[in-house]
Amino acid sequence: MSDDLFAAVVANTAVRGQTDDAAVVTVMLRVESALASAQERVGDLDADAAEAVRKACVAAADVDLAALARDTALGGNPVIPLVAEIRRLAGRHADAVHHGATSQDVIDTVLMIMSRESIGTIAGELDRAAASLDALVSDDRLVMGRTLMQHAVPLPLSTKIDGWRRGLADVARRLRAVASSLPVQLGGPVGDGSTLGEHPDDVRAALAETLGLADAPSWHTVRLPVADLASALATASGVVGKVALDVVLMAQAEVAEVREAAEGRGGSSSMPHKSNPIAAISARASARRAPHLAAHLFAQMEQEHERAAGAWHAEWSALVDLLRATGSACWWLAESLTSLEIDLDAVERNR
Amino acid sequence: MSDDLFAAVVANTAVRGQTDDAAVVTVMLRVESALASAQERVGDLDADAAEAVRKACVAAADVDLAALARDTALGGNPVIPLVAEIRRLAGRHADAVHHGATSQDVIDTVLMIMSRESIGTIAGELDRAAASLDALVSDDRLVMGRTLMQHAVPLPLSTKIDGWRRGLADVARRLRAVASSLPVQLGGPVGDGSTLGEHPDDVRAALAETLGLADAPSWHTVRLPVADLASALATASGVVGKVALDVVLMAQAEVAEVREAAEGRGGSSSMPHKSNPIAAISARASARRAPHLAAHLFAQMEQEHERAAGAWHAEWSALVDLLRATGSACWWLAESLTSLEIDLDAVERNR
Amino acid sequence: MSDDLFAAVVANTAVRGQTDDAAVVTVMLRVESALASAQERVGDLDADAAEAVRKACVAAADVDLAALARDTALGGNPVIPLVAEIRRLAGRHADAVHHGATSQDVIDTVLMIMSRESIGTIAGELDRAAASLDALVSDDRLVMGRTLMQHAVPLPLSTKIDGWRRGLADVARRLRAVASSLPVQLGGPVGDGSTLGEHPDDVRAALAETLGLADAPSWHTVRLPVADLASALATASGVVGKVALDVVLMAQAEVAEVREAAEGRGGSSSMPHKSNPIAAISARASARRAPHLAAHLFAQMEQEHERAAGAWHAEWSALVDLLRATGSACWWLAESLTSLEIDLDAVERNR
Amino acid sequence: MSDDLFAAVVANTAVRGQTDDAAVVTVMLRVESALASAQERVGDLDADAAEAVRKACVAAADVDLAALARDTALGGNPVIPLVAEIRRLAGRHADAVHHGATSQDVIDTVLMIMSRESIGTIAGELDRAAASLDALVSDDRLVMGRTLMQHAVPLPLSTKIDGWRRGLADVARRLRAVASSLPVQLGGPVGDGSTLGEHPDDVRAALAETLGLADAPSWHTVRLPVADLASALATASGVVGKVALDVVLMAQAEVAEVREAAEGRGGSSSMPHKSNPIAAISARASARRAPHLAAHLFAQMEQEHERAAGAWHAEWSALVDLLRATGSACWWLAESLTSLEIDLDAVERNR
Repeated sequence: MSDDLFAAVVANTAVRGQTDDAAVVTVMLRVESALASAQERVGDLDADAAEAVRKACVAAADVDLAALARDTALGGNPVIPLVAEIRRLAGRHADAVHHGATSQDVIDTVLMIMSRESIGTIAGELDRAAASLDALVSDDRLVMGRTLMQHAVPLPLSTKIDGWRRGLADVARRLRAVASSLPVQLGGPVGDGSTLGEHPDDVRAALAETLGLADAPSWHTVRLPVADLASALATASGVVGKVALDVVLMAQAEVAEVREAAEGRGGSSSMPHKSNPIAAISARASARRAPHLAAHLFAQMEQEHERAAGAWHAEWSALVDLLRATGSACWWLAESLTSLEIDLDAVERNR
Repeated sequence: MSDDLFAAVVANTAVRGQTDDAAVVTVMLRVESALASAQERVGDLDADAAEAVRKACVAAADVDLAALARDTALGGNPVIPLVAEIRRLAGRHADAVHHGATSQDVIDTVLMIMSRESIGTIAGELDRAAASLDALVSDDRLVMGRTLMQHAVPLPLSTKIDGWRRGLADVARRLRAVASSLPVQLGGPVGDGSTLGEHPDDVRAALAETLGLADAPSWHTVRLPVADLASALATASGVVGKVALDVVLMAQAEVAEVREAAEGRGGSSSMPHKSNPIAAISARASARRAPHLAAHLFAQMEQEHERAAGAWHAEWSALVDLLRATGSACWWLAESLTSLEIDLDAVERNR
Repeated sequence: MSDDLFAAVVANTAVRGQTDDAAVVTVMLRVESALASAQERVGDLDADAAEAVRKACVAAADVDLAALARDTALGGNPVIPLVAEIRRLAGRHADAVHHGATSQDVIDTVLMIMSRESIGTIAGELDRAAASLDALVSDDRLVMGRTLMQHAVPLPLSTKIDGWRRGLADVARRLRAVASSLPVQLGGPVGDGSTLGEHPDDVRAALAETLGLADAPSWHTVRLPVADLASALATASGVVGKVALDVVLMAQAEVAEVREAAEGRGGSSSMPHKSNPIAAISARASARRAPHLAAHLFAQMEQEHERAAGAWHAEWSALVDLLRATGSACWWLAESLTSLEIDLDAVERNR
Repeated sequence: MSDDLFAAVVANTAVRGQTDDAAVVTVMLRVESALASAQERVGDLDADAAEAVRKACVAAADVDLAALARDTALGGNPVIPLVAEIRRLAGRHADAVHHGATSQDVIDTVLMIMSRESIGTIAGELDRAAASLDALVSDDRLVMGRTLMQHAVPLPLSTKIDGWRRGLADVARRLRAVASSLPVQLGGPVGDGSTLGEHPDDVRAALAETLGLADAPSWHTVRLPVADLASALATASGVVGKVALDVVLMAQAEVAEVREAAEGRGGSSSMPHKSNPIAAISARASARRAPHLAAHLFAQMEQEHERAAGAWHAEWSALVDLLRATGSACWWLAESLTSLEIDLDAVERNR
């Protein structure tokens, strides 16, 4: 089933391809494969077994997605049926698959990897948006300052736009800092590592290194990495929303200080004369999804004992949606700002 | 692109098929077709033109979804490219297509139709959940009452379960009341009906009748129908969450008063001995998505002038997600309650 | 401790006086007193005992608020220490006080009474706001319609303003419908009425009648009345926010179609020349509090067994804040609209 | 007006005294006074004028709070009437008061100071909670691990409790990092510093130093410091909620592994035999307020131009409420954990 039509406005981002079913399966297999390698390195698996697991993970990439989704509903997460499939493919080395790990280890690690990669995309769009402002800020003329939506006193246009740019750069920095701190999750059934051989910390460190994640003790029900993502993503969307709103306000007919000049964009089904700043509008629409998705993730932090009965499951799609919403907000804003034309006569006239 | 794996837990509902891309296109075409019929009935379109529109709408069902999604991003909504396609197919009657209407008329009406149909599904699941309690409430023995999660004094098991049943029945009633009140949206570019011929109210009434919606003046930026849906859906999810939580708590090993007895469900990737009440858990996970989606919809009510620059677009997928989350919560709860076994000995022992 | 300074903007409403500590104590005493009367009527208390309770409730109005707050923290709710005080004052009739009831019965009933009374205030402000539009809608001239914040085509000013008025009237109607449906809560420790004598339903019906509330079975952990309040209040705030936003946008210097003409209001600490539409701005600020407070209340519906361990307590101040936020939004909007001047020349010029 | 009764449960924290009206006035005066000193240092004010401002700020501490609240409603913020009062008291040096600053400079700086001081309190409570766990983690016996609320396999009690402790320590660290980064706000009417003399950056740096805040360019409508606070506070509440929930679950009668042993706390108005873990319950109730308050603050980041028409005002009490909610959650959790008794026999029995 696809949801591409509405996503074209509020999830218009390469993050979608980094977080859809195909990506989830690919990254789950990467984690299972890396786990075997880590265990081989530490001496918990012999070379044959580890190689068998890695090969089974490659073969499992052809897994029937529809069957996987159906079986996901039976056990409550997609790891259970995928591990069954890898085990089938691993033949006599079945026991080496997912060895000592639990479903949550895999899903949480997958979410961290997908988040790190998505943030790469998102921060890149923020860079593009910020860079596009360089040309605009060279001008030192004055623009009317507006407080409480009323005329106040003029300020340099460069100061106004520099405020936008600093905000965009700041949130890109925050996002990258969070991305680089995202930890692996590996603790076994109840998070204490007791099923992970004699050196569970070494296995975890090796897994983290292989996957390019930070190493950290099991955080299975203390959800700080998810909270950090929620925080940084909602903050980024907030800054994007501010800039997009300013663009929309300055594009009003009576103000007319800016317009989006993008070929083929911004038409109307009923009014052909209109030219809507559709990129800034879509950036706002996308950004507005973030606060409530973040609240949802914060609200799910109240997780029972060693694995939550619902709050954990409720995180998955919300985190994905938040990555996509923020990615979409940033892409649209970059589209808006790179196409922005400032009418300096209007700026002067309104002063 | 598909998101079926995570949806298998938190959007496991027939509502998905009632709200995905295929459904959106089907219902958009139904609305455009019905508009032509309504305009024919009122005398604004002649029979040939109306018939041409209807035929073009049938033919447009083959529209290339990928192209439609791509073009949606250009104008900011899927109606613009779909109308272009219908006009192409209508040939010399192109002008009769989408006559006097605006994109928002179509999208809002589509959302109302999809919501009404989804609520049919959701309320049916609530009925199924409530009906399954009939067998359980026959018993008049006592169960320990628990306040603040501590033992209080016993109460009749039938009273406890009857509280669940009344809650489920009450929200089903509320949902059906909202569904039957959902209005058509038809107002033209700025909502005043001035492009809709000499009798815009008659066209609107005819359209409402054809589509089985209520008739109401244009509500393009006063979003009461969306708020009503947010309210009723979040309220329903809230009651489902309460019942599911009670099931999860009563299924704890130390309490053991109930268990879900569903073949093949509730396994674990690391602990084969476990039997998790996965349906109740998934109901909780699904229900927990609702409060924040509802907040998002309430927050989008602040819409500018005659069409909002972002807040309107931000409603679409949130409303769809809320329908799905609630649908999933209700389906899972019905699954849980229809498979529920009560251990009366345990009930007695805990008293 | 007071929070009047920030409340002056975002909780500027008579609802504050209907929901503060003094009001909570007054209404708690009214409920305890009415309970005794109901029990007398049904025959569960003799006349002497009931009279003693009523007198003790009158005397307890002098209770030391600071001590009450301090003791509230010990038991987790204010009913426990207040009942202790009433019992002390009732002397040998102490047992007749709070007879068979539990803290939650009192708090929930108090919240319903305060909500009903607050909605009286809120709906009155909505009426005042709507009524002020009557003068404005007489005009049949055209105003520029604006979609996506761009000029579209003109529409009658009366149509635009009538959209506001209908929205305000609709939410006033919804609020009054909810207020008139708010039920008493009376169920005793675990909600089954078993401590309330031989005719618990009759006691509850009598109590409801005395207090002017609806009668309904115990809803102690199925929080539909709270959800109904959250829904109607957030919906009302949403419509207020829409109208206030339109006022703010029309008051922009470059648009200048309306201004708030209220003596002494809207000044600036740094720019004496400014005239800010501070009432509409404050209405927006107040209204924006509602979606998240409503989400909070929906999220608290997941309540354990016969009394929630936290979710119930988390409702109280959120419900009060939501009543105040909505009351403030409505008061400010009424202030804005009753002071609104339309500049018809500007309206014409912008067209 | 006071709201102490409900606050006794969900805002039971010394943060209240650090954020109430008296605190707001005190800190506003501190800022106005420090501004004069900073301007004196940079040479923008002569010594006499600066001294006159400082004295007037001391004298203004007696301002009539009720009048201040009333006048706050006229201009939309409390700075306008307070500055008028200071100017009156400064006599012929009236012009030196609030020189070149705008209301938002003062309010934003006040919010940063109050937040920094409140976080001092909050982090102290987190330390107290974490420290109380030291005694408990010495034990190396096993406790049953519970996943999806079902028995899984045992894990060391010390590992379980160490997970709590690490979470509490982590959020204390995050809060302190945010507190130490909170910046002064000083930019004048439109944020460009043009009214602040020839060396606006020097004035701002001096003001920051005096007040113990970080120095940073004007962030008047790019609300990163508020977003950082929202993030860190909601994250802290999330961890507190997790630990409190575990305590509540372990205190269930059927589990009985822990109990709160605090003299005089946890009674019931109807069931004298009960002993409720009221501190953990109140911690949960307090913590649950955070996600939605954070969402509210994120949603207010979309601020217009040089001062938002509503979104800025909507931040104030929400930020205060979030500080209090988190402070209350942490205080209650510290109370719970310092009074916690573990029943090791029960732990063993449940395994």
